[in-house]
Amino acid sequence: MVDMICDYYSTVGQQRVKPGVEPGFLRGQLPASPPEQPEAFEDVLRDVQEKLMPGVVHWQSPSFFAYFPSNTSFPAALADMWAGALSMIGFSWAASPVSTELEMAMMDWLAELCGLPAAFRCNGGAGPGGGVIQGTTSEAVLVALLAARARALRGRVQADKLRLVAYSSDQAHSCFRKACMVAGVDHVRMLPTSAEHNWELQPEVLQAAIDADLAAGLLPCFVMATIGTTSSCAVDPVARLAPVAARRVSNGLGRAGGCGAWLHVDAAYAGAAALLPEQRSAHFGDLGAVDSYSFNPHKWLLVNFDCCALWVADAGPLKEALSLTPVFLQATGNALDYKDWQIPLGRRFRSLKLYFVLRMYGAEKLRAYLRHHIALAAAFAAALQADPRFELAAPQRFGLVCFRLRDVPRQVNAALLEAVNASGRLLIIHTELGGAYTLRLAVGSASTQLEHVEAAWEVIKGAADQVLRQHAERTAAEAPAAVPARA
Amino acid sequence: MVDMICDYYSTVGQQRVKPGVEPGFLRGQLPASPPEQPEAFEDVLRDVQEKLMPGVVHWQSPSFFAYFPSNTSFPAALADMWAGALSMIGFSWAASPVSTELEMAMMDWLAELCGLPAAFRCNGGAGPGGGVIQGTTSEAVLVALLAARARALRGRVQADKLRLVAYSSDQAHSCFRKACMVAGVDHVRMLPTSAEHNWELQPEVLQAAIDADLAAGLLPCFVMATIGTTSSCAVDPVARLAPVAARRVSNGLGRAGGCGAWLHVDAAYAGAAALLPEQRSAHFGDLGAVDSYSFNPHKWLLVNFDCCALWVADAGPLKEALSLTPVFLQATGNALDYKDWQIPLGRRFRSLKLYFVLRMYGAEKLRAYLRHHIALAAAFAAALQADPRFELAAPQRFGLVCFRLRDVPRQVNAALLEAVNASGRLLIIHTELGGAYTLRLAVGSASTQLEHVEAAWEVIKGAADQVLRQHAERTAAEAPAAVPARA
Repeated sequence: MVDMICDYYSTVGQQRVKPGVEPGFLRGQLPASPPEQPEAFEDVLRDVQEKLMPGVVHWQSPSFFAYFPSNTSFPAALADMWAGALSMIGFSWAASPVSTELEMAMMDWLAELCGLPAAFRCNGGAGPGGGVIQGTTSEAVLVALLAARARALRGRVQADKLRLVAYSSDQAHSCFRKACMVAGVDHVRMLPTSAEHNWELQPEVLQAAIDADLAAGLLPCFVMATIGTTSSCAVDPVARLAPVAARRVSNGLGRAGGCGAWLHVDAAYAGAAALLPEQRSAHFGDLGAVDSYSFNPHKWLLVNFDCCALWVADAGPLKEALSLTPVFLQATGNALDYKDWQIPLGRRFRSLKLYFVLRMYGAEKLRAYLRHHIALAAAFAAALQADPRFELAAPQRFGLVCFRLRDVPRQVNAALLEAVNASGRLLIIHTELGGAYTLRLAVGSASTQLEHVEAAWEVIKGAADQVLRQHAERTAAEAPAAVPARA
Repeated sequence: MVDMICDYYSTVGQQRVKPGVEPGFLRGQLPASPPEQPEAFEDVLRDVQEKLMPGVVHWQSPSFFAYFPSNTSFPAALADMWAGALSMIGFSWAASPVSTELEMAMMDWLAELCGLPAAFRCNGGAGPGGGVIQGTTSEAVLVALLAARARALRGRVQADKLRLVAYSSDQAHSCFRKACMVAGVDHVRMLPTSAEHNWELQPEVLQAAIDADLAAGLLPCFVMATIGTTSSCAVDPVARLAPVAARRVSNGLGRAGGCGAWLHVDAAYAGAAALLPEQRSAHFGDLGAVDSYSFNPHKWLLVNFDCCALWVADAGPLKEALSLTPVFLQATGNALDYKDWQIPLGRRFRSLKLYFVLRMYGAEKLRAYLRHHIALAAAFAAALQADPRFELAAPQRFGLVCFRLRDVPRQVNAALLEAVNASGRLLIIHTELGGAYTLRLAVGSASTQLEHVEAAWEVIKGAADQVLRQHAERTAAEAPAAVPARA
């Protein structure tokens, strides 16, 4: 298996990034029932290669530029093997002391690397805040919302939960809306953004929405800002949104009983860039007034999926929302029970991946790795801007470049995406920005080098030649038809 | 790493099952900050052995009899290595066709092995129902509850969600209450059970609770039955609970608009036993009227954590609860998008573990494996029953034996547990049954053999000698003190 994995990594760059299979491709190739008798490992591996691999999208290809990256590394894979071998289910300190304590330590290491506020440190469980590893950002946002809900409903009647409101920009990840659905928060405001402000949520827009909701008798409860949106890597101005979110809403029990809206920052992809001082000062600003913050080392920090880092400045509301243990019985300090910080009871020993990655790369190499990708994205953006047929659809941020052919109908850009991906030589996806069809190229696969970005640009230029020629031909062919037939 | 894992499995049986560390043991041993420069793999491994391993609870020890087992196997580990190497994030068919299609096929294989109703089959996405792999039972129960909530609220106003009621027995896993907290279902009935009925939820108890809630104007929405409770492996009579749960509650829009309560069956641990025809007929009965059913192959079916199998007879309400895509845009058939069947967006390629395990063991060996553990538990129960000092606290079911020293104060049984675990030679935990302190020994580690169960029994007998002697001494010493001092 180790050989197979090494072979895979050494050849994945030559394979079609996206397979040509159609829905249902696999079903007829598998027996309808599982076997009664054992089958040989070699037979299973042969079927993996012959039947399963043709249906794989190669997220580890150096020419995978779709979605956001899903980094893997040998240190993380080795750690995962060991974690799987142990298979401790570390829901409580007692069930697996080392899982709990290494997780606290690694979340502190990561907080330090990212320059996060001191309030987010576990400090061995001594403080009110701390970090926890969730599976995905969806779970991190959901537990942050549940904490927000618990805090907002303190001293209130249950019916008040019908009045809760959650806010984000219209660029926020879909997990924001999904979390609201799950938590039963019915009033969801996805506030408008615009090209003029680079798709960033403006404080005055949030302010106006909160004012309107307060006037209507609703309860602002949760604000999610994003650093690095999925569509365009827009960066909401967190430090300027914080005072707007923090406006205290009385619960009728006096000032002490009310609270402002909980401010969560979703930096799922871009959070890795906080390791770089220059990116931190440019895009992360002052996070001191943030209630919770999350990013995914499994995207762009060489930690295999899944590993989402979530920090809270005060874990109290989180435990109110998620612990079944009365507060006076809850473990504290080093004996904290992470089951009270997440939805599932069971949990894998995921901190070991962070431990291996942070030690075997070291901070300096990780920074170089991130700068390398950002430089590749900048190189792609520069090439694109030198070609007058193209335009950037948003400022290049982190490893993401959003672009389109200028002055053409949207179906020409859609045809461009299709032609690029049909080549099999790279994979990109599209998004919508202000209603405009936009292609996005996200640099960040662990093995991506300049040659891959240059090759991608060549494919894109060639596909542009083709679709623009077809567009010109079609326009020419249609032009006479625009003259009324009877004229 | 492979060598280290093999060494570990070959020696784990000789190690203390539970370490002697205290909270905070690790913090002082780790640097406060991550390193700037890379460190050698050998150095990391040495620290794993010297600093981390002393804090490990050996869930893979053949003498681990605590909680429920957390099975690992080489087929599952190999599959996990490959899944980790690919790190496809299979949220949609398009993002990873093979993940989606193999998952549908494996859930059908598993449904067949367990003799589950035809309505639960994916059939290539053709039917209304199907299976999906969740991370844990906590997540499976939560999504089932969310589906129930969505179905119950069809045609109703949002405020009706304040009237929803969920039911289980007081033996149900804590994830039931946690799911209700997350989903904001405020009326939670954990119905009483008793020794007389082996801690099983009685249909008339459910009936009375539902009647009372209906009379109070509430909306019964969700019933969770358990096959194999955590405390004692009680088996709720699912087929007899189903008609009680199914009583239709009108939503005021006529008969078509109302629905009964959603019936979920949690067979987290015991579900593996459904592979055995004799266990199936004894404990699983008719599941034909069940809305959803889940069990964890990661507990007792040799599939490394995490892998929770969830089936629904109708995925419609699930997607209503969890999909952001309007119904008319939702993918169907083989192109189904599993993101709409779960809370997170991202997901690992977990079906590959099932594929490797089911093929490399084959059904016959898996059945033999399960029967082996059940026979070991029966042997332990027989030994225990032959010792007049002990009593069974519940019927032995599956691999679990609940027991205690009879006719002694609870602290003597508590002292027994402490003495047994202090030996380091096995690990068991306790539970409460009807307020009585109860020890539980769960057989099911992959490497557990008769010798380990016999050795456990010897340790338990020896510890019983010790604590009963101490109890007798204390009783004797205290007896004169019971005479008033002034007499």
